[in-house]
Amino acid sequence: MAGRDFRELLSAQWRAGRFLCVGLDSDFEKIPETARKNTVADTIVNFNRAIIDATRDLVCAYKPNNAFYEAHGDEGWRALRATVQYINEQAPEVPVILDSKRADIGNTNLGYVDSFFEHLHVDAITVPPYLGKEALEPFLSHKEKGIFVLCRTSNGGAGEFQDLKVGDEPFYKVVAQHVSEEWNTNGNCGLVVGATYPEEMKAIREIAPDLPFLIPGLGAQNGDLKKSVQYGKSASGRGLVLAASRAIIFASSGTHFAEVARQKSEEFNSEIAAALIQ
Amino acid sequence: MAGRDFRELLSAQWRAGRFLCVGLDSDFEKIPETARKNTVADTIVNFNRAIIDATRDLVCAYKPNNAFYEAHGDEGWRALRATVQYINEQAPEVPVILDSKRADIGNTNLGYVDSFFEHLHVDAITVPPYLGKEALEPFLSHKEKGIFVLCRTSNGGAGEFQDLKVGDEPFYKVVAQHVSEEWNTNGNCGLVVGATYPEEMKAIREIAPDLPFLIPGLGAQNGDLKKSVQYGKSASGRGLVLAASRAIIFASSGTHFAEVARQKSEEFNSEIAAALIQ
Repeated sequence: MAGRDFRELLSAQWRAGRFLCVGLDSDFEKIPETARKNTVADTIVNFNRAIIDATRDLVCAYKPNNAFYEAHGDEGWRALRATVQYINEQAPEVPVILDSKRADIGNTNLGYVDSFFEHLHVDAITVPPYLGKEALEPFLSHKEKGIFVLCRTSNGGAGEFQDLKVGDEPFYKVVAQHVSEEWNTNGNCGLVVGATYPEEMKAIREIAPDLPFLIPGLGAQNGDLKKSVQYGKSASGRGLVLAASRAIIFASSGTHFAEVARQKSEEFNSEIAAALIQ
Repeated sequence: MAGRDFRELLSAQWRAGRFLCVGLDSDFEKIPETARKNTVADTIVNFNRAIIDATRDLVCAYKPNNAFYEAHGDEGWRALRATVQYINEQAPEVPVILDSKRADIGNTNLGYVDSFFEHLHVDAITVPPYLGKEALEPFLSHKEKGIFVLCRTSNGGAGEFQDLKVGDEPFYKVVAQHVSEEWNTNGNCGLVVGATYPEEMKAIREIAPDLPFLIPGLGAQNGDLKKSVQYGKSASGRGLVLAASRAIIFASSGTHFAEVARQKSEEFNSEIAAALIQ
């Protein structure tokens, strides 16, 4: 994928008014009967292709989450690779964010660099902050890739450590500060900020006025779309990667699941557009 | 792997006086010529088998790190699965700790549960703390599996967040406290504490007197073995999983690499035994 640059791809999508990211959390058990093939891998790829064909002009990015693929071992990995390859070939203007949520220390990360960037050819990844910047240099040094650091996660128990006060500030704000001021020397960092915590998002946006926010938790997790747009948009009115998964890809289990996924995407886009002009 | 219980397996190893964990960080590029086969997967598996055959009576656990396998995509996953299967069959008394360093939120983790426990059949995993206990319940509820939470990592930049003061205490001590007092209701938690930070290890052992410590950083990273044993051992004089990888498995690149790995393991064991009686 020589020549691809995540921030350029994303900026072009934003200029075209696209802020919706479809999460390809393609849980095998939930895939409609009509999309099924002989093998697990073929079924997942066939389903993903149908979703991609139906939504590629409506999204700013796709976001497969590794967990749903690795559940099936090497077969799942083949499905993940084939899915990313399909997006790269059929919708080369749409960046792929791998929701990997993993990192190791130093050179061990080179294994993941090979895995994500050389083998799977994704444009961006998600990483946890706990190991510190020094550990993540093998990722951060890839300036053409997007590195989204978990800042405020969307789960109900996110506050256990993320809300602990470091001096006067909660820990999630300290993470935002470090990433914004110290980690982003290559201009390739972003933050993961759950739609389920709009007030926290507002505080994080003040700290990081220009970083892209990957915002999960819309749809099935009941995140607040309107407030996410209002509080999450950057100084320039962009900066949003609003992710919904189940609410789109599994909106229907019938024959027309892909058409329904398109309708749901259009509904999300209308809501986003309405919130942006408010 | 019905009937296997990580803590029982580990306790039996400790009773037999074994505290060394060999890290199967089987970087393909470093595998000796003499161990090579036609494919990447066959080469890695062949190398691992030779190391396992040569060391199985000297170790308390094996610890493959995913990164070295995932670097090779689905082929790497087949190699990882075949390696764990070989240990389970040929050395069923030796638990396998998968150094996965990943977690997602809530039910998404079920994909990783399937991957790690149903597909790969490992006995224990490593997870980062940032998402909180609630996110990790799908792992923690498996009481027969070991869940090692990253507490103080071995890398040079570990302190960026881990040393930040939460009230009067550094963050890594708060993590140790939460895991010890709140996460360990099934008695299946442990902590990852780098051998490169002996003073921090001492403080963590005071907070968590009985949790198993997975201690990376010996050998190539120059962690302090003597102090790790002294400060890391539990109240009962056990609790140690002392991990070395490159220093053992890549000690020789010659024909007799497996014999040399055995010699190195014996040297580590002598040092551990000497440190334990001091």
